[in-house]
Amino acid sequence: MNELRGACIIGQSGGPTSVINASAYGVIDTALKSGVITQVLGAENGIKGVLNDRLFDMGLEDPEELALMKYTPSSALGSCRYKIADPDVDDTDYKRILEVFKKHNVRYFFYNGGNDSMDTCNKISKYMQRVGYDCRVIGVPKTIDNDLWGTDHCPGFASAAKYISTSCMEVYHDARVYDTGMICIIEIMGRHAGWLTAASALATEYGAGPDLIYMPETDFDMDQFIADVKRVYEEKGNCMVAVSEGIHYADGSFVSEAKTSATDGFGHAQLGGLEVMLQEIVKDRIPGVKVRGIELSLLQRCAAHLASETDIEESYMAGKAAVENAIAGISDRMVGFERGIVDGKYACKTKLIPLTEVANVEKKIPREWINEAGNGVTHELIDYALPLIQGEPELPKVDSLPRFCKLKKILAK
Amino acid sequence: MNELRGACIIGQSGGPTSVINASAYGVIDTALKSGVITQVLGAENGIKGVLNDRLFDMGLEDPEELALMKYTPSSALGSCRYKIADPDVDDTDYKRILEVFKKHNVRYFFYNGGNDSMDTCNKISKYMQRVGYDCRVIGVPKTIDNDLWGTDHCPGFASAAKYISTSCMEVYHDARVYDTGMICIIEIMGRHAGWLTAASALATEYGAGPDLIYMPETDFDMDQFIADVKRVYEEKGNCMVAVSEGIHYADGSFVSEAKTSATDGFGHAQLGGLEVMLQEIVKDRIPGVKVRGIELSLLQRCAAHLASETDIEESYMAGKAAVENAIAGISDRMVGFERGIVDGKYACKTKLIPLTEVANVEKKIPREWINEAGNGVTHELIDYALPLIQGEPELPKVDSLPRFCKLKKILAK
Repeated sequence: MNELRGACIIGQSGGPTSVINASAYGVIDTALKSGVITQVLGAENGIKGVLNDRLFDMGLEDPEELALMKYTPSSALGSCRYKIADPDVDDTDYKRILEVFKKHNVRYFFYNGGNDSMDTCNKISKYMQRVGYDCRVIGVPKTIDNDLWGTDHCPGFASAAKYISTSCMEVYHDARVYDTGMICIIEIMGRHAGWLTAASALATEYGAGPDLIYMPETDFDMDQFIADVKRVYEEKGNCMVAVSEGIHYADGSFVSEAKTSATDGFGHAQLGGLEVMLQEIVKDRIPGVKVRGIELSLLQRCAAHLASETDIEESYMAGKAAVENAIAGISDRMVGFERGIVDGKYACKTKLIPLTEVANVEKKIPREWINEAGNGVTHELIDYALPLIQGEPELPKVDSLPRFCKLKKILAK
Repeated sequence: MNELRGACIIGQSGGPTSVINASAYGVIDTALKSGVITQVLGAENGIKGVLNDRLFDMGLEDPEELALMKYTPSSALGSCRYKIADPDVDDTDYKRILEVFKKHNVRYFFYNGGNDSMDTCNKISKYMQRVGYDCRVIGVPKTIDNDLWGTDHCPGFASAAKYISTSCMEVYHDARVYDTGMICIIEIMGRHAGWLTAASALATEYGAGPDLIYMPETDFDMDQFIADVKRVYEEKGNCMVAVSEGIHYADGSFVSEAKTSATDGFGHAQLGGLEVMLQEIVKDRIPGVKVRGIELSLLQRCAAHLASETDIEESYMAGKAAVENAIAGISDRMVGFERGIVDGKYACKTKLIPLTEVANVEKKIPREWINEAGNGVTHELIDYALPLIQGEPELPKVDSLPRFCKLKKILAK
């Protein structure tokens, strides 16, 4: 085995999740105990922390506080949405990263994020190879969107799915409490992939969920939508609808588009407010009916209080596997999950996927898991998602409120 | 003791809560075991179920399903927003109610609701007295708004408060994950009383909550609001704000007013969309800053998964006390709570308040529990709310999703 001694950096990037810190803790905990990694550095706000040489010495943290990362939502080290340049066009950032790596003798780089972050991770990996700097680079997946290529599922998806399905079950009961009916429209995150919106079908499977589910994998048709809603409302006296923020017309334009202007750092349109728009259209097209739109907003990605224990443990496992594989000589890969059956039960093990294959590719719901009408899912989707949301973690609490980790964040000398 | 044998009716009215069914179960369970109450009837959609003679025979339900009512949000019997007439103006409804009461030999009437429901309950009580029909009428309180007069607190408030404070703690972490700051505005329910919005201060007390809190107990000033937000944002680089849906200007008009048109059955303006409005104003007045509004919407009143065990047990106790007192000869009262200290710990016992005193009176936050600037609360509010949210119930689940009660709802012959 090619033993490489040196420091490691762990950075977090992109939108946070309920369990991204469980992965980061998997990296930190394993690295601190490795005996090979000489210093564990946490980058402040992802790659920006590397560029600015803002690196926390994680070995100086209280181990008990670090362990609370498993149950703390959001990115404990801070995140960023920073689009790194193509090194052939502008290698300024890469030279600076190399400089900081050399300064701290960084030989391991772990980057914890989604599609865009894996692109950053891939570019850095390839640059280090090209300049001949010996540094093992491993991507640690996270995304509630569940859209990373090459892995059965992504850390963070299941906890958001559990929050969404549980909340849908609760709202389902609330939204039909009166003798007068109601149309309730729930807007769920997911720009190009509908995994999270589809997860609302778990609520329906357990007797209290959306009647109609619209995902970005199929084209949206407003007339058909109104006809669907009207039909269900007339049949049942109530109608619950789940829509993905990313639903779009056949020409590719987002339904929400007319209402958006700003863009995020990666050039994506900043979505939101779709449920308000649909609410108004439904009110207008189905007169006299009570309509309520609910946007799950940030709540769905930070609801650590409803995290899946399976998700937490797998997220930790992904971080741990990243460090173990890197120490064993692996580089230029992302950790992924492979689903199996052990003793008749769901089981999950890690695998490795070349970063080049992962970067910027989005995994969508297979078309055959969506019903023909494009307004619901098949049982394959339920069978896929259900094992992932299992298990209730023992959440650390003080006075019945969450006890999240508090890091000292001491800059490395 | 004046033993009165006969049937009882339990009805639920107004907006539901996470624990209103715990109170209804307290009534049903106690009545079924009483030996005095001959039949327990659940009114479909509150008083409307009485008027329509749609009464479920609760004795025909499976006891195990009934017991799940303690953990099932929303009104299991169905609710209504029906404004009953003044009997001096129009006694049609009252004559019909008397007719239905006589038909089923109803001698006990329990009405589970908030301010408006206590008004209905009071009017029915007084009518039955006037016509000399022997029927004991007891109000069982519920309201997330916590604004019923004469009781230390209301069943339903604490669970909503726990959801709000927990969610604020989670969003607080999520909303400051990037190196660029954000102003986050959270809209919370509460038309005239700010208890729920104030409860977000529990999150701040535990290190991760709103910087600014605006409640309807003080007049709102848009310029002062913008100045407050700007100051906090400049100081901290981030700003989290909690606003009550019912904030209003000095002339009494709701801040959200321009955006509303519909009214509910009681003539209240239908609020909502305030956070969208404030978000736009903040963006306009503090240019270049990222702003996100989040409306907790129905989620906050049906989040049984975050219910307070204290709230569940007290809600059950309120229903139980209603039946026990009625059997003992009491009528024309609402059950309320009295707070005490037993062995140095928070304790709660029931008391009785004349319905006339309760009907249509709203209990607001004492002005001295709100800071002088009107943008936060004092420690009295924390000391008041904290004991109420304590305790984690053992939630019935199947496959990690809630297992809510399923009633057969068999109409009484």
